[in-house]
Amino acid sequence: MSAPIEFYFDFASPYGYLASESVDALGERHGRSVVWHALVLDANFQSQDRIRIPASAMRSDYVMRDTERLAAYMGLPYKAPSLHSLHTELAARIFQWLNDRNPAQAKDFAHGVYRAYFVDDQNIAEAEVVAGLAERAGLARDDFNAASNEPATKARFKAEIDMAEARGVFGSPFFIVEGERFWGNDRVPQLERWLASGPY
Amino acid sequence: MSAPIEFYFDFASPYGYLASESVDALGERHGRSVVWHALVLDANFQSQDRIRIPASAMRSDYVMRDTERLAAYMGLPYKAPSLHSLHTELAARIFQWLNDRNPAQAKDFAHGVYRAYFVDDQNIAEAEVVAGLAERAGLARDDFNAASNEPATKARFKAEIDMAEARGVFGSPFFIVEGERFWGNDRVPQLERWLASGPY
Repeated sequence: MSAPIEFYFDFASPYGYLASESVDALGERHGRSVVWHALVLDANFQSQDRIRIPASAMRSDYVMRDTERLAAYMGLPYKAPSLHSLHTELAARIFQWLNDRNPAQAKDFAHGVYRAYFVDDQNIAEAEVVAGLAERAGLARDDFNAASNEPATKARFKAEIDMAEARGVFGSPFFIVEGERFWGNDRVPQLERWLASGPY
Repeated sequence: MSAPIEFYFDFASPYGYLASESVDALGERHGRSVVWHALVLDANFQSQDRIRIPASAMRSDYVMRDTERLAAYMGLPYKAPSLHSLHTELAARIFQWLNDRNPAQAKDFAHGVYRAYFVDDQNIAEAEVVAGLAERAGLARDDFNAASNEPATKARFKAEIDMAEARGVFGSPFFIVEGERFWGNDRVPQLERWLASGPY
């Protein structure tokens, strides 16, 4: 049994959104499962690597044009959001809670959150918006409230972040397969070669 | 007559080296000339964009592995240099001096400098090393000395940097065609689509 592709993403990352729309098909092409991991790459996030792109870069003219162009290149819907640097930890915690119980449902939820932010320009930092998206993915309101507030959920999410740091993750999207790290959509062709013909 | 591809690079940038080995073939595939521009992306370099990757990132485990893997992916020779954050302004000034007089000779020189640094592990910050590389590209020693020290050469190089900043360049390699900016080898597929079928 081959190792899965570990897929790390931040709900605030437009590049993560674009990756989320194609990563499962990538896995299928190479007979690999894909394990999704929601992250929050905020000021508290530490990584072994010395690369840090400031959040303000996401508002640069270049990145705003680049994301639109990349979406067009990938044939995906995209509308630049009016809100930046949103706090997406609640959505990430709900994702993790679902993912521990039903990964397919968690992916539905993640697609909903990403499309709400990067296609429909919704504020995914608002609890009501996240609750509505969770409901559409089939999460009962009581479960949502429990998942939002339980200390165990917060501890579980913290452990996920610690694991990402230990693995040397520092960006979104970020892929790991057999210990090899690939940062960004632009490294997907290199990841594909790895999956097709092994280490190089 | 189509606009040329403007190719910006820093001699200290391994990604710039990898781009330098393929950019002219890219231009030829699409019937475009390629204008090369040497840069020094040091602490004095300002750009309109808010993206700044610290020089220390070039020593990160991730980037060191990524450059080796990208070279293998592109089928190019590469040996991680033992010296980092070299001061490459002299090589850039000599390049500019040559490029104003004989672009083909300047490209020969640029290939020599890049391969000396990223294949043969030479210290391209040393004047003697640069002089030897210039001589191999056909630059007489007297011309080298003049190009190294003339105030006009320094002013010309400064103007090149100002032009790059005005155009919104902030990394290496960096490509501009018809005002559209593409940062990094990983945007070359998007650049190719632009060249093949126009703006999107």
